[in-house]
Amino acid sequence: MADDKKKVEAITSMEKDFAQWYTDVVIKSELIGYTSVKGCMAIKPAGYAIWELIQKQLDAKFKETGVENVYMPMFIPESLLEKEKDHVEGFAPEVAWVTHGGLSELQEKLCVRPTSETLFCDFYAKDIESYRDLPKVYNQWCSVVRWEKETRPFLRSREFLWQEGHTAHATAEEAEERTIQMLNVYADFCENVLAMPVIKGQKTEKEKFAGAVATYTIEALMHDGKALQSGTSHNFGDGFAKAFGVQYTDKENKLQYVHQTSWGVTTRLIGAIIMVHGDDNGLVLPPRIAPTQVMIVPIMQKKEGVLEKAEELRSAISAYARVKVDASDKSPGFKFAEQEMRGIPLRLEVGPRDIEAGQAILVRRDNGEKETVAFTDLEKRIPELLDTIQKDMLEKARAHRDANTHTAKSWDEFKDIIENRQGFIKAMWCGDTECEEAIKAETGASTRCMPFEQECFSDVCVHCGKPAKKMVYFGRAY
Amino acid sequence: MADDKKKVEAITSMEKDFAQWYTDVVIKSELIGYTSVKGCMAIKPAGYAIWELIQKQLDAKFKETGVENVYMPMFIPESLLEKEKDHVEGFAPEVAWVTHGGLSELQEKLCVRPTSETLFCDFYAKDIESYRDLPKVYNQWCSVVRWEKETRPFLRSREFLWQEGHTAHATAEEAEERTIQMLNVYADFCENVLAMPVIKGQKTEKEKFAGAVATYTIEALMHDGKALQSGTSHNFGDGFAKAFGVQYTDKENKLQYVHQTSWGVTTRLIGAIIMVHGDDNGLVLPPRIAPTQVMIVPIMQKKEGVLEKAEELRSAISAYARVKVDASDKSPGFKFAEQEMRGIPLRLEVGPRDIEAGQAILVRRDNGEKETVAFTDLEKRIPELLDTIQKDMLEKARAHRDANTHTAKSWDEFKDIIENRQGFIKAMWCGDTECEEAIKAETGASTRCMPFEQECFSDVCVHCGKPAKKMVYFGRAY
Repeated sequence: MADDKKKVEAITSMEKDFAQWYTDVVIKSELIGYTSVKGCMAIKPAGYAIWELIQKQLDAKFKETGVENVYMPMFIPESLLEKEKDHVEGFAPEVAWVTHGGLSELQEKLCVRPTSETLFCDFYAKDIESYRDLPKVYNQWCSVVRWEKETRPFLRSREFLWQEGHTAHATAEEAEERTIQMLNVYADFCENVLAMPVIKGQKTEKEKFAGAVATYTIEALMHDGKALQSGTSHNFGDGFAKAFGVQYTDKENKLQYVHQTSWGVTTRLIGAIIMVHGDDNGLVLPPRIAPTQVMIVPIMQKKEGVLEKAEELRSAISAYARVKVDASDKSPGFKFAEQEMRGIPLRLEVGPRDIEAGQAILVRRDNGEKETVAFTDLEKRIPELLDTIQKDMLEKARAHRDANTHTAKSWDEFKDIIENRQGFIKAMWCGDTECEEAIKAETGASTRCMPFEQECFSDVCVHCGKPAKKMVYFGRAY
Repeated sequence: MADDKKKVEAITSMEKDFAQWYTDVVIKSELIGYTSVKGCMAIKPAGYAIWELIQKQLDAKFKETGVENVYMPMFIPESLLEKEKDHVEGFAPEVAWVTHGGLSELQEKLCVRPTSETLFCDFYAKDIESYRDLPKVYNQWCSVVRWEKETRPFLRSREFLWQEGHTAHATAEEAEERTIQMLNVYADFCENVLAMPVIKGQKTEKEKFAGAVATYTIEALMHDGKALQSGTSHNFGDGFAKAFGVQYTDKENKLQYVHQTSWGVTTRLIGAIIMVHGDDNGLVLPPRIAPTQVMIVPIMQKKEGVLEKAEELRSAISAYARVKVDASDKSPGFKFAEQEMRGIPLRLEVGPRDIEAGQAILVRRDNGEKETVAFTDLEKRIPELLDTIQKDMLEKARAHRDANTHTAKSWDEFKDIIENRQGFIKAMWCGDTECEEAIKAETGASTRCMPFEQECFSDVCVHCGKPAKKMVYFGRAY
């Protein structure tokens, strides 16, 4: 190998320093690049292609449920942001303000949207007249800005990409139904596409969205035992409708307020994929979200016929899988390491001897298993293997999550788990915000959610001993 | 019909007041809604679905040529914007400035991207090392902001959606080739998908992009005879590379500057579709860009079996066309008018007598032609008709463009055309910016482009009489 070729350098081990491992992976697998814009990242082709697959698959699921896409302005006039009291209190401290347009100062400053409830409400107030205009089930794919002090690629950045659904309904029941429906869409997507099991539940009063009546969440467990809030769905009741005057005339010609919801997932999901599936060799992508599912690595590619065969295989495989050939002038060993770093689910090796024998070698990224497959069987075997990998990755993630989910029946047990183990802690809670805050202050663990699947293993709160109201998942979180 | 049902109101005739006709169409066909954010529009589902089809089809074409999608930050630090002199002069007067983040004033103010050359250059300066890293052929789909004083939906708004491609190449030849290649992608897309013929050519020095060596454009003619710049592709040479230090080591290990391009189209294309194809009944969408290609209108839908048949047809047609049923409780006549306003290419009427006869009526939006088609022939006839409509719309637009393209051999002729006729004026030009400015000051007509297909019908400039250098398309423009 020539000297100027880049080497695949080893990354920090995840056991040694998980945070550094994460940073190494996002950079070395070329998902992002740093920019001169503080707190903002450049999403490179390998990273953006994952987001495109998330968009494509999730958008199709949305549309099956009647969602229509729209686009609202990226700016919110200050007076609009201030219309809903809880909402402005929640967001005003972390927005970016545009004060000048062109060469003049603006009469009213505009914030760059941190989320668009206020814009959708303003729009719905003008657009909705009668019950015939309902429901409105709109969504937009866009970027939003929150002026975070500490940032990490995908997990917390000043600008991030997301989708935000905003709906308006005639009745409270319909709004609640939509809120839960979208949470289920997210949960199914995480499990079936990202191979990431999630806990579905409701946020506590303290943790709910600014302005919501109820916030539902899906919570996933990362490899280091920390939780990641992976998607949320909010029921606003008629609070925003009253603040913005979003009304409709019902069938009896009476004016009524609409009931609203909003729901979103972000590029954070890419951080989740990294932290749930990655290993010390880099990224490991579930097949359904892998921009390249099969990478063909020709062996002794200068020998006559090898590159031709690789290209012939690529062309055939492209009918049923996303496939590329790495025909660069790097050594096979280097290519193996590079494709492992990039998390490509299957590697196909083919060299002169394989060609003679009419076969190729398939290597799984997730567990390293190799097998020799006749060219004529690839069409059957590759899709099978991709399905198996997808399934195995979900099972592995679920096993890790289950092995790291603990039940704390006493405060001593709770503290012992937090200090000596890792993961989710299931515990009974009194429902009191002060108690919740005390738990967080003492242990760093916040309430992740009150799961839909409740258990009852004690009558009293794990912390204060008062009567228990809910079983809660606690955890340290991103 | 109940009183509270909305009526389809007549729109202003395009001959009477084209500007008002345009506004009526964008509102009544529900493409956009106004917002409380001055100069910004809300793109409603009917409008955004057109943009999604533009994105999908154009993005596929981009990727065929090797384009990869990425995402860069939406903010540009002032110091970055200022690095290329012509560029900052061109854009600084029309950008929005973020001066505060959260509760504090920023140390350096950030503009909201009006275009992202500076961000891509900054990124490439870090990301490109050797000739092996070239070419970079990146694109992003995003929104940009330009603080326009006068705004019109789709045509000129403070925020708009677009794609911006930014490429870096080893040689000047390769950069020029890519610049032209993308212009051709745009031109083919406009003709084949939007049914809109365009003139391809180069912008004059005065009209070129701030910081470019050469700007190429596609220019279309609207129904009112005004021109619309519909897409541009810029060759930057190594100007930006020198300003930002974007260098690579070549095969001889010598440092070289890259050569760059950028190219973009915007939601303006939706304005073009409206103004090229629309009529006094509203929008007319070319089938390839119509979110709904066939609208089924049941006649006497309360009669048994009608809605069932409509749904059965919808299900069958959905295999080969984008189809919906309008099963609302409005009258058929009202539905006809509404679907015409929305520009849906084909209407399918089906009522009890049709069902008995085993047939439906198909009505073309573009020319009103009706035909009766047996249910069993729909599968053949609908795709045929959609193709025919697509083709006829392109021919009609081309005929209108050609009938409104004039040749001016003298200044009197030029003025006569501008005053008494409409459309493109082909004329010989000396190449002098002062002369170009004088023509614009006297007539309101600007140079649209120096077309690739040059003609020579005079040796002297139409305005000043000096030796002619180029044949130019002039026109009043949006």
